[in-house]
Amino acid sequence: MIYIDSALQRGLAAGQSVPGVGHVLSARDLTPDDVDSLCTMAADFATGRADNQRSAGKTVALLFFQSSTRTRLGFEVATYSLGCHAIGMEDMSASRSNTRTGESLEDAGAVISRLCDAIVIRHHETGAAARIASKSRKPVINAGDGWNEHPTQALIDIFAMRRGLRGLRGKVLGFGGDPRGRTVRSLVQLLRHEAPAEVVFCPPPHVDVPPDVIAALSEHQIRTRLITDIETALTGCDAIMMAPYDMSDIGQAPGTDYVSPRHTPDSHQITAEKIQRTKSKALLYHPLPRQDEITPDCDDLPNAMYFEQVRLSKFMRMAVLDRALATE
Amino acid sequence: MIYIDSALQRGLAAGQSVPGVGHVLSARDLTPDDVDSLCTMAADFATGRADNQRSAGKTVALLFFQSSTRTRLGFEVATYSLGCHAIGMEDMSASRSNTRTGESLEDAGAVISRLCDAIVIRHHETGAAARIASKSRKPVINAGDGWNEHPTQALIDIFAMRRGLRGLRGKVLGFGGDPRGRTVRSLVQLLRHEAPAEVVFCPPPHVDVPPDVIAALSEHQIRTRLITDIETALTGCDAIMMAPYDMSDIGQAPGTDYVSPRHTPDSHQITAEKIQRTKSKALLYHPLPRQDEITPDCDDLPNAMYFEQVRLSKFMRMAVLDRALATE
Amino acid sequence: MIYIDSALQRGLAAGQSVPGVGHVLSARDLTPDDVDSLCTMAADFATGRADNQRSAGKTVALLFFQSSTRTRLGFEVATYSLGCHAIGMEDMSASRSNTRTGESLEDAGAVISRLCDAIVIRHHETGAAARIASKSRKPVINAGDGWNEHPTQALIDIFAMRRGLRGLRGKVLGFGGDPRGRTVRSLVQLLRHEAPAEVVFCPPPHVDVPPDVIAALSEHQIRTRLITDIETALTGCDAIMMAPYDMSDIGQAPGTDYVSPRHTPDSHQITAEKIQRTKSKALLYHPLPRQDEITPDCDDLPNAMYFEQVRLSKFMRMAVLDRALATE
Repeated sequence: MIYIDSALQRGLAAGQSVPGVGHVLSARDLTPDDVDSLCTMAADFATGRADNQRSAGKTVALLFFQSSTRTRLGFEVATYSLGCHAIGMEDMSASRSNTRTGESLEDAGAVISRLCDAIVIRHHETGAAARIASKSRKPVINAGDGWNEHPTQALIDIFAMRRGLRGLRGKVLGFGGDPRGRTVRSLVQLLRHEAPAEVVFCPPPHVDVPPDVIAALSEHQIRTRLITDIETALTGCDAIMMAPYDMSDIGQAPGTDYVSPRHTPDSHQITAEKIQRTKSKALLYHPLPRQDEITPDCDDLPNAMYFEQVRLSKFMRMAVLDRALATE
Repeated sequence: MIYIDSALQRGLAAGQSVPGVGHVLSARDLTPDDVDSLCTMAADFATGRADNQRSAGKTVALLFFQSSTRTRLGFEVATYSLGCHAIGMEDMSASRSNTRTGESLEDAGAVISRLCDAIVIRHHETGAAARIASKSRKPVINAGDGWNEHPTQALIDIFAMRRGLRGLRGKVLGFGGDPRGRTVRSLVQLLRHEAPAEVVFCPPPHVDVPPDVIAALSEHQIRTRLITDIETALTGCDAIMMAPYDMSDIGQAPGTDYVSPRHTPDSHQITAEKIQRTKSKALLYHPLPRQDEITPDCDDLPNAMYFEQVRLSKFMRMAVLDRALATE
Repeated sequence: MIYIDSALQRGLAAGQSVPGVGHVLSARDLTPDDVDSLCTMAADFATGRADNQRSAGKTVALLFFQSSTRTRLGFEVATYSLGCHAIGMEDMSASRSNTRTGESLEDAGAVISRLCDAIVIRHHETGAAARIASKSRKPVINAGDGWNEHPTQALIDIFAMRRGLRGLRGKVLGFGGDPRGRTVRSLVQLLRHEAPAEVVFCPPPHVDVPPDVIAALSEHQIRTRLITDIETALTGCDAIMMAPYDMSDIGQAPGTDYVSPRHTPDSHQITAEKIQRTKSKALLYHPLPRQDEITPDCDDLPNAMYFEQVRLSKFMRMAVLDRALATE
């Protein structure tokens, strides 16, 4: 099961290496020092200690070729919080950088980077951010490309879990829902350096955890385990990162023709009843949007961290943008 | 003919009563004092007397799940005029808070309210604003929910008519066009406290004035009357609030399968010829967009107040936003 | 072949002549002095010499009824660079100023001009900008109306070519691609006053150069010539303004039922190999987006001016907006 072919992989690396332009295309490119300094900066933005005006007056292009609520609104509010202007598209199908007109992503990068100071892009194609970066004169931030990566969400997740768990070292972490999404792939890249004791996956029965995800953890001596009932995670994990059980709104997953039902079975659903019965202390995270994999009656329990995670996301997005604007 | 069922009604009330959050969900929730103080504030914004920077730097989310021109542009310009930032969506179908992805309005409220200081929402569903408000930590302003309400338009209408007529007390007011729309329902709630002498309706022949609209007026000792020719209103009314004769672009009206033609019959159309022949002094208002219920040759007559109403709308929207941002 | 009928022509002129409102509807309305002063202002914005805050705090409405990337993003960034606010629509089909709801462009102009200080409009209909201008109280800038005109693109082209060629007087200029588009029509109006020696067209074989385009040049004693191979332009021209060979994404061209293939034949395509073999010094311009009429291997050659043209576009758009806002 190949998610990214090697030619594209080289393209991603090439895009990354444009000298002097600090793209954020893959979580793989973020060193442990990068993650630490971004988390520190995000925490400082949260408390108001950091200077949030050093990039004031610059312009950020937000290019959403794929639908988004919180990523787009989050980058928009982060842009304004840094005193910057946002230009761009909530729906790039209303632009002429589309299939019909035939403008390439490379040309879009060359053009739009002449009108702004940084680019944030979401796209349905794997490698789209790297393609736009390959001709961009300004930093490009990948806000999700197909089934590939979503590195800023991974940074948000690490930031939120570090705060909730007071560090991830030695912790047991669960993944619920479909593990093939881009948020899981990106998060696992960052988890390699957080030294959790174990990562537990509870995927839908017909879905395999992508081998590159397992390999990334194993290579860093992090144990992995498969479970078939989310209650096992509730009793054994310090935190659970949930994802939708059904990700078909993202499009057809590569390497499979399995289409999941739009309904999470009881075995994979977190409910207030289960939490209370198991006296679970597991903290619940979710990149959102959720469907029915966490029932709303969990929202007011102390386990529920997913809305706090949204609040924190603004400060991490500010940190990512601030760093990109400072390097350009 | 039931427009809002009682369970939803309770939901609306519950949404409204979240302690300490000053939502504007229904015109019913606005007291006469609220209306007076908002009209005063709007007038002060119009003359430049009011401090328009006390909420500067805050963020307003504009969530338009249903198409809009003037309401959206109006709230956008009002936001900027208060020194605030607008984030959001002109077309929420490009967001993941949609039917396909399955994020609930309640979750959208919980999430987006963590990224902003106030929410303005338009939606095709009755009760949508109340649903988003039920989980929002920040004030929610209903900018139109289905066939239910549009309270800020009602405030604009009252503000514009008070100025045009030097107060509504004792005045005779006409309603032209389809009386089932949300602007009429909201406006009638506010009219109860303005003490007009009489309200005259000139609906399409096959359309009933909603009983709750009639009842709201009758309970406050305001006479109501049905007419079948708009000329009667031109000769007998101090002001006429027009609406499209055909509101089918809003969707199927509840409680009827009547679909009106996309053409206003002569009996229900206001023209320059009728105004001049009847020497009508009636002031003409309209929430707009219009179709053919007022012909463009009326635009330059002194009766035409509908474009001035647009100009005034900015100041009332500033007042509503400023109040919401101050209470949060 | 009639592109604009005479009744509409009169309408355009009438729209233009609303006293005291400085619309930019057609390149025809720009005098040589206008062009000179806009180019000077744009150059001063580029170097930072011009005061870019004299209109700060004003509001510009960007109304895009037709898809756009660079024009919309360009006007957005120009608006912010002048310290102004942008309101509006990236996709006016999400507004109620659409065919279904039935609001006229004239009403949209009357309404929106009460909420802003200037209007920029792109629309698929010839004459749309003039229609919205006819009832607008604020300056309207035509950012492309159907197959008619795109005057601000023409100003950008003149600004960029004047800089690249150190003036156009006596120069030989080539036009590649489909010559029926609105950018060509507008640019030719401005070229009349730049005194080039000759203008060479290399259209697709089945496409005629519009007679009004030829006539505009001939009346000003500018020679015109048709060629059938772009290599002739590479060897004989000082600059070549390219356009897509296939403009069918703009819609059906008037006066023809010819639909071009989505592929530029070798005879009409500019490649790095041709440039190097012919030792061409011709500067290459393009309003973009391109398809395959200039291959990407040209991008790093010194001939390629089209991305620099994008960079310069921001300053010309600032000049156009600044002038419009100053006159209102």
